[in-house]
Amino acid sequence: MDEYAKYLEVLGGRIREIRIEKGWTQEDLASEADIDRSYVGGVERGERNITFTMLCRVSAALECKISILTKELP
Amino acid sequence: MDEYAKYLEVLGGRIREIRIEKGWTQEDLASEADIDRSYVGGVERGERNITFTMLCRVSAALECKISILTKELP
Repeated sequence: MDEYAKYLEVLGGRIREIRIEKGWTQEDLASEADIDRSYVGGVERGERNITFTMLCRVSAALECKISILTKELP
Repeated sequence: MDEYAKYLEVLGGRIREIRIEKGWTQEDLASEADIDRSYVGGVERGERNITFTMLCRVSAALECKISILTKELP
């Protein structure tokens, strides 16, 4: 297993947290970011290795910069 | 074309800059990060949509946090 996979869970947890703070469902975030709802679910659970452009979409939708989402990560 | 693809170029340019500051070739970075040299080349040129765990590897190898690499990006 990729030693960095654990950071996918941290990142996914932060994304979920901010989404919930906004009162959004996964469906809402998917729609705002123009990505698939199942992709959002997989990212939040740390199961999906999000690509950089997808991360840009998610962070733009959440109005939370990548540099904030990745604080204290490698 | 993905409207966020332009940020791949920004990110790739920063990775290249820090690699060169360290006096490293792409081969050196690939070896430090334990990834393929052609992957490094594609990322630096903004042609490859780097995944989050790969970005973790690159930033750990460069000793430059993702939050710094992504400053002022979405």
